Amino acid sequence: MSNVSSRLYGLGVGPGDPELITVKSLRILQTVPVIAYPAPEVGESLARSIAAPNLGNKQIEIVIRTPMTPGSFPANDVYDHYAKEIKKHLNFGRDVALICEGDPFLYGSFMYLYERLSSNYKVEVVPGVSSLGAVAAVAGCPLVSRNEILTLLPAPMDEDKLERKLLDTDTAAIMKIGRHLGKVKRVLSRLGLDHNAIYVEHASMPDQKIFQMREISKKNAPYFSMVLVNSKKKGGA
Amino acid sequence: MSNVSSRLYGLGVGPGDPELITVKSLRILQTVPVIAYPAPEVGESLARSIAAPNLGNKQIEIVIRTPMTPGSFPANDVYDHYAKEIKKHLNFGRDVALICEGDPFLYGSFMYLYERLSSNYKVEVVPGVSSLGAVAAVAGCPLVSRNEILTLLPAPMDEDKLERKLLDTDTAAIMKIGRHLGKVKRVLSRLGLDHNAIYVEHASMPDQKIFQMREISKKNAPYFSMVLVNSKKKGGA
Repeated sequence: MSNVSSRLYGLGVGPGDPELITVKSLRILQTVPVIAYPAPEVGESLARSIAAPNLGNKQIEIVIRTPMTPGSFPANDVYDHYAKEIKKHLNFGRDVALICEGDPFLYGSFMYLYERLSSNYKVEVVPGVSSLGAVAAVAGCPLVSRNEILTLLPAPMDEDKLERKLLDTDTAAIMKIGRHLGKVKRVLSRLGLDHNAIYVEHASMPDQKIFQMREISKKNAPYFSMVLVNSKKKGGA
Repeated sequence: MSNVSSRLYGLGVGPGDPELITVKSLRILQTVPVIAYPAPEVGESLARSIAAPNLGNKQIEIVIRTPMTPGSFPANDVYDHYAKEIKKHLNFGRDVALICEGDPFLYGSFMYLYERLSSNYKVEVVPGVSSLGAVAAVAGCPLVSRNEILTLLPAPMDEDKLERKLLDTDTAAIMKIGRHLGKVKRVLSRLGLDHNAIYVEHASMPDQKIFQMREISKKNAPYFSMVLVNSKKKGGA
């Protein structure tokens, strides 16, 4: 453990609506001297855009640009590089907040920096409202109650495995739909579950869209989209 | 749909730390004329205690007392009764916020009122930070990344099923541990997963406790406790 007193925050800022940030994340966001956030290789950072209305105006910003090619994940050397950048500030005594859409530990890229920094620096994770809760809220779909099982399934997974997992849960949330929309539709239709499934993209954001799965004809979806499936009920979702 | 303009809010107030409420829930909590919250048959409401530092002081309060016996769920007539109470206020033109620990649609008793009121009244669900995110944050345990699967399992489930589900996921969150702690320990030990499991009770609250599962000797846990299991990794959780 480094002997610096500075701290890295994994700061959940919620699913999209800037008002769905927690009071705690808001306080840290407005007082921390350095913010960092993931961004695509070219273009805007969604995490920063969620935090934007709440940012101070004299903060140092580290843009973590991660080249993403479909089906692959950012290379380790990208995160090695940004871990070093963040260390410089921590060693200088500056707290750093890494802004995370949703919750930092639920499919967030924060984890790659957490595993590089948490053994040598103080790290505090501030949980956030996840896209899971936001999707359920805007779709009016209770997720699970009583002794029901909920399974989170990333859409890129193998088609056979997706089918098997959908049959073995009460509710499923299929995440990161993107270019896998066709496959997800096919599996749900084969299982007779497309009448119990609801599709949501950009939950709680200005461009939010909600459809019954059976009404969807497009073949591709944004990365930030999700399908909720009630695997055990007959009739509408 | 009733023609009243008043609205029922399902208001997620987060996992325990009053600062983990969202800015949106805080705004509604401080302005709504009527609040309602679940409570045990005797004693304090946890939901109200989370919201307490942020409450206004002239609000009407509806205490939804639900008798709970181990292994059973509150009777339908309890929720029928409180749905009527809430309707009175909505019909009178008063907004009502039902305060929910964590997220309203994730194992929350809000659902029982949602199913009774949502077809006739305007209902807005405000998502909250779930105990899942809070437990992962305080335990320093990333939940899932990349294409990993996360399964939420209620501890009261059948022992064989629990064992099977733990073997068929990357990460599991076993919720509502309570009097099922012994069973959960037994299953994890049999599967050789007790070295990859971490136990958290009252995450983010003043009486929060965190243990490696293999260190636990007690037989019972509070209802608000959870075990995170990394089913795929060898070594410590």
